Amino acid sequence: MDTLKGFQVVAEDHASAARTGLIQTPHGEVRTPAFFPVGTHGAVRGIDPAELESVGVSGLLGNTYHLHLRPGEALIQKHGGLHGFMAWSHPILTDSGGYQVHSLDHLCERSEDGVRFRDPSDGSQHFLSPERCIEIQEALGADFIVILDEFEPIPLDRTQADAARVRKMMERTLRWAERAKSSCKRKDQQLFGIVQGGGFEDLREESAERTRALGFDGYAIGGLGVGEDTNARALLVSAALRPLPLDQPRYLMGIGHPEDVVEAVNLGVDLFDCVIPTRHGRHGVAFTNTGPIQLRNARFRIDDSPLDPACTCPVCARFSRAYLRHLLAAREMLGPRLVSLHNIAFYMQLMTAMRDAIGRGEFSSWRDNWRRSYEPKSVGSSDATDSAA
Amino acid sequence: MDTLKGFQVVAEDHASAARTGLIQTPHGEVRTPAFFPVGTHGAVRGIDPAELESVGVSGLLGNTYHLHLRPGEALIQKHGGLHGFMAWSHPILTDSGGYQVHSLDHLCERSEDGVRFRDPSDGSQHFLSPERCIEIQEALGADFIVILDEFEPIPLDRTQADAARVRKMMERTLRWAERAKSSCKRKDQQLFGIVQGGGFEDLREESAERTRALGFDGYAIGGLGVGEDTNARALLVSAALRPLPLDQPRYLMGIGHPEDVVEAVNLGVDLFDCVIPTRHGRHGVAFTNTGPIQLRNARFRIDDSPLDPACTCPVCARFSRAYLRHLLAAREMLGPRLVSLHNIAFYMQLMTAMRDAIGRGEFSSWRDNWRRSYEPKSVGSSDATDSAA
Repeated sequence: MDTLKGFQVVAEDHASAARTGLIQTPHGEVRTPAFFPVGTHGAVRGIDPAELESVGVSGLLGNTYHLHLRPGEALIQKHGGLHGFMAWSHPILTDSGGYQVHSLDHLCERSEDGVRFRDPSDGSQHFLSPERCIEIQEALGADFIVILDEFEPIPLDRTQADAARVRKMMERTLRWAERAKSSCKRKDQQLFGIVQGGGFEDLREESAERTRALGFDGYAIGGLGVGEDTNARALLVSAALRPLPLDQPRYLMGIGHPEDVVEAVNLGVDLFDCVIPTRHGRHGVAFTNTGPIQLRNARFRIDDSPLDPACTCPVCARFSRAYLRHLLAAREMLGPRLVSLHNIAFYMQLMTAMRDAIGRGEFSSWRDNWRRSYEPKSVGSSDATDSAA
Repeated sequence: MDTLKGFQVVAEDHASAARTGLIQTPHGEVRTPAFFPVGTHGAVRGIDPAELESVGVSGLLGNTYHLHLRPGEALIQKHGGLHGFMAWSHPILTDSGGYQVHSLDHLCERSEDGVRFRDPSDGSQHFLSPERCIEIQEALGADFIVILDEFEPIPLDRTQADAARVRKMMERTLRWAERAKSSCKRKDQQLFGIVQGGGFEDLREESAERTRALGFDGYAIGGLGVGEDTNARALLVSAALRPLPLDQPRYLMGIGHPEDVVEAVNLGVDLFDCVIPTRHGRHGVAFTNTGPIQLRNARFRIDDSPLDPACTCPVCARFSRAYLRHLLAAREMLGPRLVSLHNIAFYMQLMTAMRDAIGRGEFSSWRDNWRRSYEPKSVGSSDATDSAA
């Protein structure tokens, strides 16, 4: 394996498709399965990079769309790329911006060439093509970059008319993937293709097969987390993973809740990103080993235990639920900040637990135990629309 | 000096009234002149106590009014007092709540007994008397507590009618001071009297003389920072300090901008609190050794220097003005947080520089140099109304 770029599987579970691995990048390594918190505008909401490091975060996601609009990739490139600009010396993945652009709906106009769109905040015109998208991501300088894809951020439907529409977008995404790949200039970045195919297993499999044929450093699975249930998602992810090479990383974009992540690891996914730990944290939802809790609930008013007694994070080491609840009630910025940090730490501890269980060859029994103790109460949305910002 | 409680002057400047000292408390010592950031609701806005510690903060101010209303002193007492509740193991000063109550205007009704007021957020009735105010502060458990005073948070006027009104409030404050003192039960807290007297030097001096006669562990000067100019304030502070014992700490409440603090140290003040470093930080104003800068200004867009090249704080060590400006423009919570932390660090470095200069016997020349290099541009209000929240 190239020391600056590459992936190797370290251990495989025997009873499932789960595996642990190691991704090398010019900014250090990522142990997989890994979860990348989202730094939309070049910052994980409210969290200092030194804090991310302290709770074991190995990589972040930056949003190409937002960074292109503000402050612009040229300025970021001048200030040491995204790593230097935001003072994060570990790996970064940038998305393509496609998700955000396609979500603009009436403000975007698609063609074979690319997507023309207006910035909702000032009405300025912008154009994103497969080539331009790579150019922007090369300027931002992330370790992992992804191709521009075409898809529609709507619930997966399975009528014949939908199938034809989804195939059309999938075919265009494949053509864009080829254009993106041949426009790449930097050799130190790892380029990921994106598997689409909506709610159709056969299209997911075909998309993965043909994306693999183009040849990428890794493979993302896009367009999920749009309201599908766990079983439907499992079938679609499995279909997408089937043709993908075992010796390359697989990345499930924008997913998700802890239970979603555990299920996807079970299917063989290596990499995740999601805004849930920080978005939920800002809204007073803290993750614990027995499930999420809404801290604003009156029952936490005099609760002097930490958010999660099993947690080793710097928040749980010092602050009570009662104090954090007070901060949220008083609208003190420190509240969202501390709950977000705990949530990120919770995800990191979850990923570590899974990597350890896989390494010991005990992932399936670990997963059974975890599912018995963790109750995924409905305290917030799990939609992939979460990843829009 | 009692190891749990007390003050000693360490060095005195020969050309001014400036002095350095050491205050002992059950939660460690405070080197004076000292500046306490404000933690209104039991948190310095957006800042982790560990960060405060890392930039050399030796003490904080908590707002009795706000903490009494939410979450209430009983809950805080159950959770280890304010120190335990907010995980701050160093000294804390609580104000009396008087400033906030008297600012409620039509929601408060004063009598000799105390002040009846409504919580603006839910209309609930509350009553604050000199005795109740001590009781609340004993439950909160701060190291420094202050008496309930009566004053009006309006610009200082100097008509005869005003003089009579100010004298009336001063006399009541003196009676309240006596009641407060005799109601104290805890012996480990240091009780501060408050000098009032509005814009009248003679009343300031009389207030200080008679407050001293009652005997307190330290003396606060209240009712300033209401729009008076530097010279007027210097005359009033000097009048208040004249009768006060040299071997007890003097605290100028709610002041102020760096230039205000430097001038008050010159007059012999030992202790300060103010929301300016955090409030200005939230609004994009960063303090530097040459004066404050408004980071939102376009000229910082591509400025890759730190906020202040001379600053040793963890923000200046890592982030550029361009990045911080971007965070503010993108409304990222991390922006206000980082600028606030830098501003607190700036104040701490300023206090250290003054203590060192006094220790070396060079305060006056230090002050001359500082005033030559620091330009107090008008980038925000310096009113003491800042200390309301």
